[in-house]
Amino acid sequence: MQFTAKEINFLLNGTLKGNPDVKVNQLAKIEEAQEGALSFLANLKYEAFLYTTNASVVIVNEDLVIDKPVKATLIKVKDAYSSFSILLEKYNSLKQDKKGIEQYSFIHPKAKIGKDVYIGAFAYISAGAIIGDNTKIYPQCFIGDDVKIGTDSVIQSGAKIYHDCVIGNKVNIHANTVIGSDGFGFAPQPDGSYVKVSQIGNVIIEDNVEIGANTCIDRATMGSTLIKEGVKLDNLIQIAHNAEIGKNTVIASQTGISGSAKIGESNIIGGQVGIVGHVTLAKGTQIQAKSGINKSIEEENKKFGGAPAQTYQNYMRSQVIIQRLPDMERKIDELQKLVNKLQENLSK
Amino acid sequence: MQFTAKEINFLLNGTLKGNPDVKVNQLAKIEEAQEGALSFLANLKYEAFLYTTNASVVIVNEDLVIDKPVKATLIKVKDAYSSFSILLEKYNSLKQDKKGIEQYSFIHPKAKIGKDVYIGAFAYISAGAIIGDNTKIYPQCFIGDDVKIGTDSVIQSGAKIYHDCVIGNKVNIHANTVIGSDGFGFAPQPDGSYVKVSQIGNVIIEDNVEIGANTCIDRATMGSTLIKEGVKLDNLIQIAHNAEIGKNTVIASQTGISGSAKIGESNIIGGQVGIVGHVTLAKGTQIQAKSGINKSIEEENKKFGGAPAQTYQNYMRSQVIIQRLPDMERKIDELQKLVNKLQENLSK
Amino acid sequence: MQFTAKEINFLLNGTLKGNPDVKVNQLAKIEEAQEGALSFLANLKYEAFLYTTNASVVIVNEDLVIDKPVKATLIKVKDAYSSFSILLEKYNSLKQDKKGIEQYSFIHPKAKIGKDVYIGAFAYISAGAIIGDNTKIYPQCFIGDDVKIGTDSVIQSGAKIYHDCVIGNKVNIHANTVIGSDGFGFAPQPDGSYVKVSQIGNVIIEDNVEIGANTCIDRATMGSTLIKEGVKLDNLIQIAHNAEIGKNTVIASQTGISGSAKIGESNIIGGQVGIVGHVTLAKGTQIQAKSGINKSIEEENKKFGGAPAQTYQNYMRSQVIIQRLPDMERKIDELQKLVNKLQENLSK
Repeated sequence: MQFTAKEINFLLNGTLKGNPDVKVNQLAKIEEAQEGALSFLANLKYEAFLYTTNASVVIVNEDLVIDKPVKATLIKVKDAYSSFSILLEKYNSLKQDKKGIEQYSFIHPKAKIGKDVYIGAFAYISAGAIIGDNTKIYPQCFIGDDVKIGTDSVIQSGAKIYHDCVIGNKVNIHANTVIGSDGFGFAPQPDGSYVKVSQIGNVIIEDNVEIGANTCIDRATMGSTLIKEGVKLDNLIQIAHNAEIGKNTVIASQTGISGSAKIGESNIIGGQVGIVGHVTLAKGTQIQAKSGINKSIEEENKKFGGAPAQTYQNYMRSQVIIQRLPDMERKIDELQKLVNKLQENLSK
Repeated sequence: MQFTAKEINFLLNGTLKGNPDVKVNQLAKIEEAQEGALSFLANLKYEAFLYTTNASVVIVNEDLVIDKPVKATLIKVKDAYSSFSILLEKYNSLKQDKKGIEQYSFIHPKAKIGKDVYIGAFAYISAGAIIGDNTKIYPQCFIGDDVKIGTDSVIQSGAKIYHDCVIGNKVNIHANTVIGSDGFGFAPQPDGSYVKVSQIGNVIIEDNVEIGANTCIDRATMGSTLIKEGVKLDNLIQIAHNAEIGKNTVIASQTGISGSAKIGESNIIGGQVGIVGHVTLAKGTQIQAKSGINKSIEEENKKFGGAPAQTYQNYMRSQVIIQRLPDMERKIDELQKLVNKLQENLSK
Repeated sequence: MQFTAKEINFLLNGTLKGNPDVKVNQLAKIEEAQEGALSFLANLKYEAFLYTTNASVVIVNEDLVIDKPVKATLIKVKDAYSSFSILLEKYNSLKQDKKGIEQYSFIHPKAKIGKDVYIGAFAYISAGAIIGDNTKIYPQCFIGDDVKIGTDSVIQSGAKIYHDCVIGNKVNIHANTVIGSDGFGFAPQPDGSYVKVSQIGNVIIEDNVEIGANTCIDRATMGSTLIKEGVKLDNLIQIAHNAEIGKNTVIASQTGISGSAKIGESNIIGGQVGIVGHVTLAKGTQIQAKSGINKSIEEENKKFGGAPAQTYQNYMRSQVIIQRLPDMERKIDELQKLVNKLQENLSK
């Protein structure tokens, strides 16, 4: 896609200085930009690059004082960073503005497809599934029986959603993520084998949730595994059966949440964290990457680290002391020698 | 699907009390059930809900003493929990009773397909593959050259099984799991680069195995990576080349088993555990979540924790002491002061 | 596939001893080989098996002294191990020598497909994509808009490559791996919700890279996430936005590299390691499995372990001391008693 400086200025409602007809076809950082690139300057730390950049168009704050010649066409706006973000979004939505139903896809006659939906080739929409308006189902996705997906959602290529799951509006699910696979439930038998416990619940994902690639969210044994509004999950995360993730909680990559755990609202959980089953985490809890949480956290807005986790302060202190352990051991040995000597002296 | 109380009673061979024509179309916990739901009461802790539940039908033990009026239709059976489990299974197998070959799927003319098989649209069955009777291959699965799959197995959507792998009977493989990708073997070269070591073995999965979603089991360099009968693997697990997982072993999510490790029979391994290559774990070993196992375990039926792992008792003790480290350090400092003082006094 | 001893001998330019017409159709270890198998003897530790093996053909070193009768046909070569490796590779490339475009695949009219390319059924090639000569795209892969893939690369079944990513020559990507999903970037809002930061960069993968199954490499926010020449990544790895992995670096399964981290050349990183964002690792760094790296490593060729990581020597020492902590604690208590006693004696 190619745009002129004039078109971009019109979009941002700014003031143009320079050649209005110069064309750009990519976005780049001001320090790396080549001819044909659109860039922006928001942080004055980078001001020097304005005079050396090869970008064809640069968006700047209208109050910027420019005291040397600039090669690029400038677009002056109130807030260069916000304006650039707006462009990013427009660019992305233009780029990914797919519509229509591609051949060959599989749409069961009993599925209901909304308006302006995209269904990529080799996607599979099962009986009873409902796909809301403006939602995009990329190629090779699997949408199981009776799945409901809201409006304006994007299900990227290869994502699999098992039967009966419910996905809200404006939800993004990245490639090859699996929603609604069976919870890991098996009953031990006297002969050492296990019998599968049927998993007949589902997964409910509320509005404005984003889920990364290759992540797994298991269906509930009964009831629902619940991902609440505004949750952001990274790649390769495990959410076990009947877990609940509170509103606006953010979880980084490769973390695992065990069965029936209830994560509170606005938690921030680092990568590679493990949380055992059936615990509850209070609102605003923060968990350091790689930690292991083995009990509930009741006080709100606290930070934890370590495996098993301690309060963040204790964790940091213990970490420092662990590094001093060789010193500590030496100190004890010296003390022992001293004390032995004292004793000898005394017993003389 | 909708059933009457009478139909369910007939299926369970119970005794019906109440309206035999009431209809149910979902399963629910007794404390959450709404009209139209079928529920059960097995644990007397929940007895009070029997008198308040909105469930239309409740399965109860025949020896239950009912001393207040009950709105729901009751089905009395010997063991309410078992009866409910039987219903769950029937419900699930009815729900997922897919059969036939959907268009468009790819079935190589040299593949052999058994009786009553389901092959979903966009599934790919390669030359020489054999699919046993009653097995279900969901949409978008890939079954490589000469793969053998037994009877009554279910391969969920998007699972990929590389050439020459062998899958037993009654095996469940969840969505987007990969079986038989190349083992991670590279020979270092003098110039710092690596040359790939061809991985020409396969993966063998025995009967009654269940494997979660997005899990990876690599093929052997030569010979077989072996998953024995009755093993249950959760989501996002890594099993490296030439590993062996013993009969009826259970492994939780995000655990990694390195190359040529031999896990014994009836092990229970928690989530996010790492096990190094070439070790052997005795029968009945239990590993705490997040542990790291870096040597063989020879004694049977022991429990381990930590990274590197210790016996469970030592691990728990060390954890407690680590939390006391700041105290310990303070104690040593005080001792030192005392000893210094003693010394001073003595040298006077 | 079936070959005679004579054909194999011709290929290896060796000397044949025994029946030249015996046929083999599989490769096996000498101690496990059955009739019809081709095997090799390189390590004299296994010499005894030469006289008992059921292999039909065995490749041996030409200087091997054979002092008992051998049933198998022998092929004598300079270096049996190298010759066998050559055969492995030939066998594998013959086995996987797929070509042509299968029905039904989706190839956008604006995609460019090179010579001798394989495109499996249900693969999806988007507008503007370029697929180089001899490259194989297995069934159910997704190749996004304007993706470039070089020559002689293999993209296994179900791998998904988002728009604008660039893949080099001789790159292997295993099944269900995701390249170019959105980086995990969200701007917190005053009301506790998050707004997505558009991720408009891409992923660049240079030549001779191998990437395992179910691995995720996120696209850059701007610019590129970069995987340099010769890198080998195992299964289930997370590479976050704007990270860089140096030439010939090897990373084991389930490791996570956070955003903007720069991993140096020729690093060796174990499994389940976590590396925080924005750090730099020097050339030749080695990281023990399960470690957590929370700061940059500047000195080259050093080994680290633990979470948070220390030098390998300190880590090993601390681990030993941690196991001695109960002893240490006891020692301190005894010292305290001794000192108290001394003090008492003195104050008498």
